Amino acid sequence: MVASKHGFSKTDINAVYRAIKTRRDIRHFIPGDIEPELLLRLIQAAHFAPSVGYMQPWHFVRITDPSLRKNIHQHVEQERLNTAEALDERKDTFMKLKIEGIMDCSELLVVSLTSQREQYILGRRTIPEMDLASVACAIQNMWLAARAEGIGLGWVSFFEPQVLAKLIQAPEGALPIAILCIGQVQGFADKPLLEESGWDTRRPLSDILSENTW
Amino acid sequence: MVASKHGFSKTDINAVYRAIKTRRDIRHFIPGDIEPELLLRLIQAAHFAPSVGYMQPWHFVRITDPSLRKNIHQHVEQERLNTAEALDERKDTFMKLKIEGIMDCSELLVVSLTSQREQYILGRRTIPEMDLASVACAIQNMWLAARAEGIGLGWVSFFEPQVLAKLIQAPEGALPIAILCIGQVQGFADKPLLEESGWDTRRPLSDILSENTW
Repeated sequence: MVASKHGFSKTDINAVYRAIKTRRDIRHFIPGDIEPELLLRLIQAAHFAPSVGYMQPWHFVRITDPSLRKNIHQHVEQERLNTAEALDERKDTFMKLKIEGIMDCSELLVVSLTSQREQYILGRRTIPEMDLASVACAIQNMWLAARAEGIGLGWVSFFEPQVLAKLIQAPEGALPIAILCIGQVQGFADKPLLEESGWDTRRPLSDILSENTW
Repeated sequence: MVASKHGFSKTDINAVYRAIKTRRDIRHFIPGDIEPELLLRLIQAAHFAPSVGYMQPWHFVRITDPSLRKNIHQHVEQERLNTAEALDERKDTFMKLKIEGIMDCSELLVVSLTSQREQYILGRRTIPEMDLASVACAIQNMWLAARAEGIGLGWVSFFEPQVLAKLIQAPEGALPIAILCIGQVQGFADKPLLEESGWDTRRPLSDILSENTW
């Protein structure tokens, strides 16, 4: 069944759904480089994302300095421990989870909201956080492109944005929102790690969909 | 060149990049229904998105009541005028842009952040806005799936979340972040509408990418 004459071929439609359904948040990496052209394709995929008022509020810092990578990892490790404390009775379960592969991945990126975002009003007068939504769309583009290419990507959000901003010497007003770990993988698990580990389950569609009223 | 043995075929990789590069924010719709199965596929694509701590903080309300649709449109129209005033010297240019197709699209969805999100700490202790990032990833999944299916999708963010929350009778703490217009289209333009209309240009990659420091 073709839904529209502007649609892709059935095979191509399936490829897009396959990327969506088999994408995983990756924390386990195996040795192996990422070719520079491949990394560039992923960043270009991000740059093709929609952005509110076409503001393109994203910036990518590629981390190649080993000591900077180590500093980032140390900060994330501290925040992991802070999170464990905040989780209270789920602390032990959480501490068994691997939440990042910062020291093992081939490529490490810090993604930030750009500075001077207050200049942009179109589409965010009442919801200024739409800039973050745009950057998330960009990262999701990268994630799906990486999955299609067979490359793992993990989004780490265990950090204090201001601390990370200082580490990458971000300009005033810019704000890191993601540490992206990118690299070769053993494979892609059938289910999300937080489902496999019993942390939570996928909700039924009836929980997230209703008609006219909530 | 195959980057990884876990990668899709070259054809399938290209399909994913094609969806990413040819996706557009759609405000112009033509008459024509969206089959219920297709709409469901799009919502399922959204539900396969990554979410911080697996919290799945998204809820979709499908708007089928014509008077509710009209009320939503009226509120958006008011916010469009408010934005025009705030844009000052760019007001006239802005007023010529079509920013939404709420009354013309076949399917209208309101997407919200769920209530009781404060229970979720994993991955958002320091960045609570990660919930919004997750919902944006979900919408980007839908957007790419819709593009592959040849269906148009527009994300409208011209509204006061609290006003929209009342219109859909959202529970306390839930927050609408998107009105999605979905429908049949004449076609997909080569460039984003805000680029074609001269509102802004796509930044060169050198502007958004750096190494180790900003």
